[in-house]
Amino acid sequence: MPAAAPTADTSAPFSLPVRVYWEDTDAGGIVYYANYLKLFERARTEWLRTLGFSQQRLLDGERVMFVVTDATLRCIAPARLDDRLDLTVRVSRAGGASLEFAQQAQRDGTLLAAAEIRVGCVQRGDDTLRASRIPAAILRALV
Amino acid sequence: MPAAAPTADTSAPFSLPVRVYWEDTDAGGIVYYANYLKLFERARTEWLRTLGFSQQRLLDGERVMFVVTDATLRCIAPARLDDRLDLTVRVSRAGGASLEFAQQAQRDGTLLAAAEIRVGCVQRGDDTLRASRIPAAILRALV
Amino acid sequence: MPAAAPTADTSAPFSLPVRVYWEDTDAGGIVYYANYLKLFERARTEWLRTLGFSQQRLLDGERVMFVVTDATLRCIAPARLDDRLDLTVRVSRAGGASLEFAQQAQRDGTLLAAAEIRVGCVQRGDDTLRASRIPAAILRALV
Amino acid sequence: MPAAAPTADTSAPFSLPVRVYWEDTDAGGIVYYANYLKLFERARTEWLRTLGFSQQRLLDGERVMFVVTDATLRCIAPARLDDRLDLTVRVSRAGGASLEFAQQAQRDGTLLAAAEIRVGCVQRGDDTLRASRIPAAILRALV
Repeated sequence: MPAAAPTADTSAPFSLPVRVYWEDTDAGGIVYYANYLKLFERARTEWLRTLGFSQQRLLDGERVMFVVTDATLRCIAPARLDDRLDLTVRVSRAGGASLEFAQQAQRDGTLLAAAEIRVGCVQRGDDTLRASRIPAAILRALV
Repeated sequence: MPAAAPTADTSAPFSLPVRVYWEDTDAGGIVYYANYLKLFERARTEWLRTLGFSQQRLLDGERVMFVVTDATLRCIAPARLDDRLDLTVRVSRAGGASLEFAQQAQRDGTLLAAAEIRVGCVQRGDDTLRASRIPAAILRALV
Repeated sequence: MPAAAPTADTSAPFSLPVRVYWEDTDAGGIVYYANYLKLFERARTEWLRTLGFSQQRLLDGERVMFVVTDATLRCIAPARLDDRLDLTVRVSRAGGASLEFAQQAQRDGTLLAAAEIRVGCVQRGDDTLRASRIPAAILRALV
Repeated sequence: MPAAAPTADTSAPFSLPVRVYWEDTDAGGIVYYANYLKLFERARTEWLRTLGFSQQRLLDGERVMFVVTDATLRCIAPARLDDRLDLTVRVSRAGGASLEFAQQAQRDGTLLAAAEIRVGCVQRGDDTLRASRIPAAILRALV
């Protein structure tokens, strides 16, 4: 599993600054690893908002939502309470029904965690979470 | 990323039953994916306890703790409020300073999510989280 | 606010044992206070289940759900990783559209946290969360 | 418990804007009530930062930390995914070893949730969480 170590992504088109709060930490004194997935999602959500899309409106209007189908997380160095993290978002692949993202958490340019996230577009209320086409307006905004 | 679909692991030596509560779900009406990492960790903790080890005692006594360094999560089918999940734990590799686990979340034998988790052993209070040898008693208990 | 200190409730009709995991703790080395609300809810959910009710079925069938409208939490002594907590549930008031609970978290009979929780019954999908009558079968089961 | 309904606090000296993400919601489609305690804490932390104090530095330097001893939460109207909330912080009482806060979550001036939070100052590593004097510099900054 430990392949070549990733390096800080300096060409990322979008970055969200966040602060580490008590809620993000655990008794080890560091950010609890599962919480990186929450932090990375905040960044994707804000990235989507900069493109003009709100997920609640996608739910209510287009009746679609994005669900994470695959996530790979690598924790490289610990983050602590009060740290300021920069969370980057880069689209690594855009398909008709799914998107893949490469994301990083950096502190002052030092890479602390990296993730690859694959999200699929599904119909709201479809219990099987069957793949659905990503709204064309979103795909157009990506290019 | 979507390789061969995993199948339900029926030979797993340890399984923890858990229930899905409101806290585990999100506005999509299903278990929030990041929370699977929490659920899977509960199972590893209880598995470790069946071997006779408490992580708080490891922290206080041996001054070591396990930290997750790599996690890969695949969400296959949604879990909902009140579902009963069985969380399996299988050690896929045991090194001197790290362990790798293959875990699954099943509902009535149907595979809903799978994860591979790599944990490293580190000294408590070591800000660099440098690898430390896993206590011999634990390694002995694994064989 | 610091009124008379509550004492461990020894007559509680329902108690759920839970274990403290990493996810429940924070960098202070203790259970993060907000997480007590999650733990207490697990106990209410299991108490409701012993009465024969599943909240997912209430959502799908009766189209109602319970939402917490008021919560008061008192943290008395810290809980730590690997602690085993007993979470008690006592109905302190049952109205036509709301229920009030007194709950405690104990460790070996020592009171660590106490809460009073008021939940209201609301129609699913009603954006205003207007009060709705509690299904009669539930009220009957309470007496 | 349902006393006079609180009204939106328009004179609050500090307000933090936050966005509602998937992680904050539950299967009811609204912000999960326990998560308001997390959101309110983010606001207190940022308020403390505007006074010049970092909690990690308090932990490392003064060896003290603030722990929540009492929390009262009232949920008035639901917040949803993508809502922008303004979280206010008002110190309602400053003692030698504890602080009390009145906080609100508003959306476009509408009050959605309110909380009263009491935090105590304790020595780091003191398992009994015995009250400790709040560092004088903080008390001075409050007046």
